[in-house]
Amino acid sequence: MDSLVKADETLDDLQNGYYIIQKQKSFRFGIDAVLLSDFVSVKNKDKVLEMCAGTGIISILMYAKKRPKSITAIEIQEEMVEMANRSLQYNSLQKHISIYNMDLREAPSLLGNSIYNAVVVNPPYMKLGSGITNPDRRQALARFEIACTLEDVIESAHKALSPFGKFYMVHRSDRLVDVIYLMRAKGIEPKKLRFVHSSLYKKPHLILVEGIKGSKPDLKIMEPLYIYDNKGNYTDEVKKIYNTNGSL
Amino acid sequence: MDSLVKADETLDDLQNGYYIIQKQKSFRFGIDAVLLSDFVSVKNKDKVLEMCAGTGIISILMYAKKRPKSITAIEIQEEMVEMANRSLQYNSLQKHISIYNMDLREAPSLLGNSIYNAVVVNPPYMKLGSGITNPDRRQALARFEIACTLEDVIESAHKALSPFGKFYMVHRSDRLVDVIYLMRAKGIEPKKLRFVHSSLYKKPHLILVEGIKGSKPDLKIMEPLYIYDNKGNYTDEVKKIYNTNGSL
Repeated sequence: MDSLVKADETLDDLQNGYYIIQKQKSFRFGIDAVLLSDFVSVKNKDKVLEMCAGTGIISILMYAKKRPKSITAIEIQEEMVEMANRSLQYNSLQKHISIYNMDLREAPSLLGNSIYNAVVVNPPYMKLGSGITNPDRRQALARFEIACTLEDVIESAHKALSPFGKFYMVHRSDRLVDVIYLMRAKGIEPKKLRFVHSSLYKKPHLILVEGIKGSKPDLKIMEPLYIYDNKGNYTDEVKKIYNTNGSL
Repeated sequence: MDSLVKADETLDDLQNGYYIIQKQKSFRFGIDAVLLSDFVSVKNKDKVLEMCAGTGIISILMYAKKRPKSITAIEIQEEMVEMANRSLQYNSLQKHISIYNMDLREAPSLLGNSIYNAVVVNPPYMKLGSGITNPDRRQALARFEIACTLEDVIESAHKALSPFGKFYMVHRSDRLVDVIYLMRAKGIEPKKLRFVHSSLYKKPHLILVEGIKGSKPDLKIMEPLYIYDNKGNYTDEVKKIYNTNGSL
């Protein structure tokens, strides 16, 4: 089975019975993927679409923890889809998770309109023209809004979602206005918002948002999620998320 | 001078050289007014408009701390304007602060379009139909969107503000989506956002927002503002705000 892993790749134990193939030097998943897959609330009967799936890490963590009926993942970079497929194969998860090489703007028409109970996405965080564009085009596509904008993501999610379907996203907190404005403007009402702070007293750097397609306004802001305590250790909550989610 | 204070009113020392007349049993200012007047960033040359001014507390605290060129305050309840005017008289602040009985929707056309460097507002927090409407109509007007909606507030502020003029508001955090959506939709871009938590680990209950008319998107989320520490005492930051602001 190790022949599924190439020379420039690693096979990492997610501590939950599953493994992930990652590039040795890039596309290694971070705490944002772990927090998003934990934040998602899906039921066993749900059909879930993951957009911007990359290595497939969020789909695998979600499957491990939530066991939805099916997960369809899409990713625009063919090389990533090929690698993600090898992770699915290694874990024998092909029955439960499918990953396709697809532009998310075409996903609703190719996969079906209004059919997903949930859409989950960890999109590129950076606007084009903000900060230094990564010289590695593959990494640039994952970090910058080159292949799709936030508006594309939310529009496509809206099309793919069934009525009152749920939308889950992690994003940088400095994009909060864009996230909230576009969600409401496109018909996915923000219902739950959680701010992630590296530690107490620090400003939040990430947001986790749940929206519902076609729902009425009624926002719940949750307790802050602190990653590190005063001693620089993971907080009990983060330890618990890693523990029940695997993926240390 | 005490004849300025009626039988059902109190005269409260703001500990900054100024006093405020309040009703004994209602319209007593809270920490939101203190935090907003501290959050505001105005210069000595600035003309400031305060909407929904009530007793005039925010205008008086702002004047005490920031000394803008002039403060114009408007309030829809005639009785409050009359009481606020007595506070101005007691403090000899009539040269610096003027308060008018005015519907904020008419303020830009009556006072002038695009002439204020800053608009400051602590609006009614509750949507009509949310929660129990206060049986006292005066209090209901201050708490519920009866005389104006959030959209009215933001539209009127936009008209009154000069280009790149600043907008400052305190609101309940569960109205965050409405606040952000309407500000961007009406042309006041949210630039700074601060969440106020009663204590560590609690979800934020208030937001302080700074917007700039006609500005480009670029949000800064600030460090959280915690009101109480673990022992139930004011945090050092809140003590400092009260101290430099007066108004204990």
